[in-house]
Amino acid sequence: MFIKGNFLFTPSRHELTIRENQYAHIENGVVTGFMTDLPETTGPETVVDYNQDIIIPAFVDLHIHAPQYINRGLGFDEELLPWLEHYTFPAEGKFAAPVFARRVYTAFLKRLQAEGTLCFSAFATIHKESTWQLMELAETMGFKAYIGKVNMDRNAPDYLLEDTDRSLADTEELAVRCREALHKVRFIATPRFVPSTTEKLMTGLGRLCETYDLPVQSHLSENRNEVAWVKELHPDLPSYTAVYDTFGLLRPEKTIMAHAIYLSDEEKRLLRDKGVYLAHCAQSNANLTSGIMPLRRNLENGLTCTIASDVAAGHTPAMNKQIALTIEISKLYSLKHDREKALTIGEGLYLATKGPGRFYGQTGSFEKGYAFDALVIHMDDIEGLERTPFEKLQQFIYDGDDRNIIARYVDGVSR
Amino acid sequence: MFIKGNFLFTPSRHELTIRENQYAHIENGVVTGFMTDLPETTGPETVVDYNQDIIIPAFVDLHIHAPQYINRGLGFDEELLPWLEHYTFPAEGKFAAPVFARRVYTAFLKRLQAEGTLCFSAFATIHKESTWQLMELAETMGFKAYIGKVNMDRNAPDYLLEDTDRSLADTEELAVRCREALHKVRFIATPRFVPSTTEKLMTGLGRLCETYDLPVQSHLSENRNEVAWVKELHPDLPSYTAVYDTFGLLRPEKTIMAHAIYLSDEEKRLLRDKGVYLAHCAQSNANLTSGIMPLRRNLENGLTCTIASDVAAGHTPAMNKQIALTIEISKLYSLKHDREKALTIGEGLYLATKGPGRFYGQTGSFEKGYAFDALVIHMDDIEGLERTPFEKLQQFIYDGDDRNIIARYVDGVSR
Repeated sequence: MFIKGNFLFTPSRHELTIRENQYAHIENGVVTGFMTDLPETTGPETVVDYNQDIIIPAFVDLHIHAPQYINRGLGFDEELLPWLEHYTFPAEGKFAAPVFARRVYTAFLKRLQAEGTLCFSAFATIHKESTWQLMELAETMGFKAYIGKVNMDRNAPDYLLEDTDRSLADTEELAVRCREALHKVRFIATPRFVPSTTEKLMTGLGRLCETYDLPVQSHLSENRNEVAWVKELHPDLPSYTAVYDTFGLLRPEKTIMAHAIYLSDEEKRLLRDKGVYLAHCAQSNANLTSGIMPLRRNLENGLTCTIASDVAAGHTPAMNKQIALTIEISKLYSLKHDREKALTIGEGLYLATKGPGRFYGQTGSFEKGYAFDALVIHMDDIEGLERTPFEKLQQFIYDGDDRNIIARYVDGVSR
Repeated sequence: MFIKGNFLFTPSRHELTIRENQYAHIENGVVTGFMTDLPETTGPETVVDYNQDIIIPAFVDLHIHAPQYINRGLGFDEELLPWLEHYTFPAEGKFAAPVFARRVYTAFLKRLQAEGTLCFSAFATIHKESTWQLMELAETMGFKAYIGKVNMDRNAPDYLLEDTDRSLADTEELAVRCREALHKVRFIATPRFVPSTTEKLMTGLGRLCETYDLPVQSHLSENRNEVAWVKELHPDLPSYTAVYDTFGLLRPEKTIMAHAIYLSDEEKRLLRDKGVYLAHCAQSNANLTSGIMPLRRNLENGLTCTIASDVAAGHTPAMNKQIALTIEISKLYSLKHDREKALTIGEGLYLATKGPGRFYGQTGSFEKGYAFDALVIHMDDIEGLERTPFEKLQQFIYDGDDRNIIARYVDGVSR
């Protein structure tokens, strides 16, 4: 198959490649290369021509809470810990009912698809059957996803508090069921965060990860009160990061930690050495008055950072809007920090496509060998004012929405 | 006419009134009161029932650049002065052609209407005929608006540099033409900013304002380099604010100054005493790395502040998104400033409705005597999860868009 249009993608954080008016050749869902003219021997292969539209890699969101989708925009008068207690936990409690869960998860996934997030890593809730609904639905709708059943056996309301052994057994069952039945959706171990998980639970999860070679996702150092609480709970361990590490939950190149705002240099070294993905959730961190991750310094120090929505503490799953907001906040941060370089559009795109895509595999770029996971974007031109592909990209990032995305591809198949 | 639904509005900055499931009575386009039941003698009056939907005052945006609409999202790698030179001035130059202007202004006004901004104050360009196109179009489409021809006679590229007398003559002509031909659209004096206007031009404008009792809009202290430049240009005047005041351009209760980030206490006193409207453009100020206005302190010191989009340095005209972003940025600001109270949802709504509405007249609230300028908003419910009117308002502010606005009223007439 050939796809024609204006392709924009980021082979590295420092490089925005623009292939204007070219043909991408796709074989078995994978990009094999670009050409400026169709080969004469094209034969019956499909050619889809998107004319002046731009084509970018589909977005990848490594931190999102599927059940909280119903709560987006609510409760932002609180900070993290009371927000969890007053808004998030009651909402997640409703997912004990799989019928309700299926209804919400269908709306959630339709929205992600509309906004162009075709690969993601999501928290579900503690509930096994509801989590399975989400996994099945995501597979059916063609997403590439990691999805985890949340583990919580301390400091939670009764209706979300798990028996430790049951929590581990349910986790194992889902990990196995997923491996057997699903293809593009994979299981990810999902301890909510240190205050919600006993040492016994963390130890058990560490073992399961080892046994099944599971990746891990959790939260780290989002809020100062949370950090102090972790210190109280684990006074003998040197840091919040060290708690996860102690229990085998910092799996090299297979771990996502959301937020990571308040970290010591020692913690940063550990996270860098383990190749942990730090999901930077700028909108969420503003909404809950959490703070601002020092993104530029983290990137320069070799930490792996990505842009993530963190719905519902982030209020929109739209990754173009998340990129715009992350750039804006990095500019305000730079004003207070010696005018360090703010994030650029190219960097923002990288941190929402190829950067996080590596966690899943070869997605998020159009280099040879990458899956053709793509969004075709149409921006209205005003007569007498034609825009370059790069200008169209900027206008989509800042002021586009799902209506501008006129086609979506996963592994070369239109979705 | 009776309108039934869930009404939310802000009689003051400290007060969010919610009238659930009530009837608003509208006579000659004006709210006369609310009731819980229809009077028995209603007779043939129209009753429109919006059921569970919420109804809020239409948004009022006191600072927006109509021609720059084509540039939203572009050039945000620059700060104010180079951004003007490289992006804004070339875009505004195109409006020498009234046909092009009409095309863009039509798209601009359609977008404002879609997003629920039904009252605004806009900069056009220096061009008389193109500005007139915008004024006529806005009148025809039913907007309440102040619209100004921009004045610039120094420090501009040739194609935007006006002869001073011509600039004044064109301004006067438009002010008169507007008064004679239009009803809801009014003329506003619009010196671009101090660096663009000679003392002679400012003096002339001040006189015109006096003669025709015109309001004024301009820019003030947006960026440190700009402030330093004004100091260089007017070394004998005590401050940027004082320059406007000296030339009669701080008209009491009739002046809008955008940005107002870097102000001395003396300037703030002057602005407060004159009742100047300070248009706080948080998104624009982030995009151009300008800074953050100390909103909470300004409000507490009795300054009149409003939330404005400043398209195209702000990338979206959607005022719900501007409210959300303003709250987010006020939270980040509070983290660095003794955790001063961040802006609330109710305050945000006030600063985008009744607060700026007062500049135009009785719009932006549903109190008795206010024009029924309103938006009807439908937020999708998920079965088994009904939301209160206040929750629907929050979800619209944070994650709604023009598709959620199912009806728009100006002076009680559906638009």
